[in-house]
Amino acid sequence: MSKKVITISREFGSGGRTIAHAVAERLGYTFYDKALVELIAKESGYSPDFIERRGEDATSTSSFLFNLARSGSSGFEGYSDISDKLYVIQHNIIKRLPEKGPCVIVGRCSDYILKDCPDALHVYIYADTKFKADRIVRLYGERDDAPEKRLEEKDKKRKVYYKNYTGRIWGMSSNYDISLNSGKLGIESCADIIAELARR
Amino acid sequence: MSKKVITISREFGSGGRTIAHAVAERLGYTFYDKALVELIAKESGYSPDFIERRGEDATSTSSFLFNLARSGSSGFEGYSDISDKLYVIQHNIIKRLPEKGPCVIVGRCSDYILKDCPDALHVYIYADTKFKADRIVRLYGERDDAPEKRLEEKDKKRKVYYKNYTGRIWGMSSNYDISLNSGKLGIESCADIIAELARR
Repeated sequence: MSKKVITISREFGSGGRTIAHAVAERLGYTFYDKALVELIAKESGYSPDFIERRGEDATSTSSFLFNLARSGSSGFEGYSDISDKLYVIQHNIIKRLPEKGPCVIVGRCSDYILKDCPDALHVYIYADTKFKADRIVRLYGERDDAPEKRLEEKDKKRKVYYKNYTGRIWGMSSNYDISLNSGKLGIESCADIIAELARR
Repeated sequence: MSKKVITISREFGSGGRTIAHAVAERLGYTFYDKALVELIAKESGYSPDFIERRGEDATSTSSFLFNLARSGSSGFEGYSDISDKLYVIQHNIIKRLPEKGPCVIVGRCSDYILKDCPDALHVYIYADTKFKADRIVRLYGERDDAPEKRLEEKDKKRKVYYKNYTGRIWGMSSNYDISLNSGKLGIESCADIIAELARR
């Protein structure tokens, strides 16, 4: 059965976004990265820039799942701060994306939100530190902080965000259907494997 | 660059061994599973059956890496019990396997032992519980214990063994070059992907 929905989670600098874009182009699927930010912005009333900043790299002040459990609610009434409210909006938008047609979704806990979608292929892209450090310097330039520090900080936040909203450990193979080391296998090769799997 | 050494780590019941065997056949590589047990048996003087029982499913009585660090040794003089001694023999045998020619190695921390081998492709195979439970009942028959319990016990031991000898978390994507959900992608499909990657 071909896969109509592909979620791509990725370490910062691994090329996951580039791979996701290439896969969407090859398959003719809608690509949800900035487009997803705009949907969340529209629904929440906040600006796309604010959504970006309070996105999956933001750390929440409290445990969303803990608050949800404590509230005794089966819905999402348990949320308390802006990050939590944005997560709820994001959750509801991502949950409905498959209805709109074949798509590739980047990050934002989409693997978890669509874990029961029978039509989905969940992908995780990562790489070794050297590959990612070289890549972010080439793409985003030098900064005051060393690239290794930038990588560590960004991924630490993503890890905390993911744990907070899903209860899962970020990067565990069992969260995904396929995990690929883009540094070792190559970005093109990763896009080939994913597109080929989606077509089967 | 084609990959001459493939290590396949796997959850019990996921079909990882079957996939490894299929990959070895397709590529004409030597398959090290029972053959590895026999090499360890020959070198250690213990029987293959004993090696199997004290293999990667056995739990050691103490932390190998902790003892090694405490001994201040750069070699393997820090080991204390039979499992540790067998691990050292296994480590040395696996380390030399690539010199003997192209091969596929199943489990036994081979991903970690050959992590710096430039010619290696490290693979992890896993699946959801239902797929694995159905598979072990079909292959090994019913037992007194429920298949879910058998899976849990076996993998718990493998996880502890892996942590003890490598310091790593078993099943983390970053330990491997590619991780595949055999339940979702299918056993044949996993073998195809691995063989194709090794040929590139």
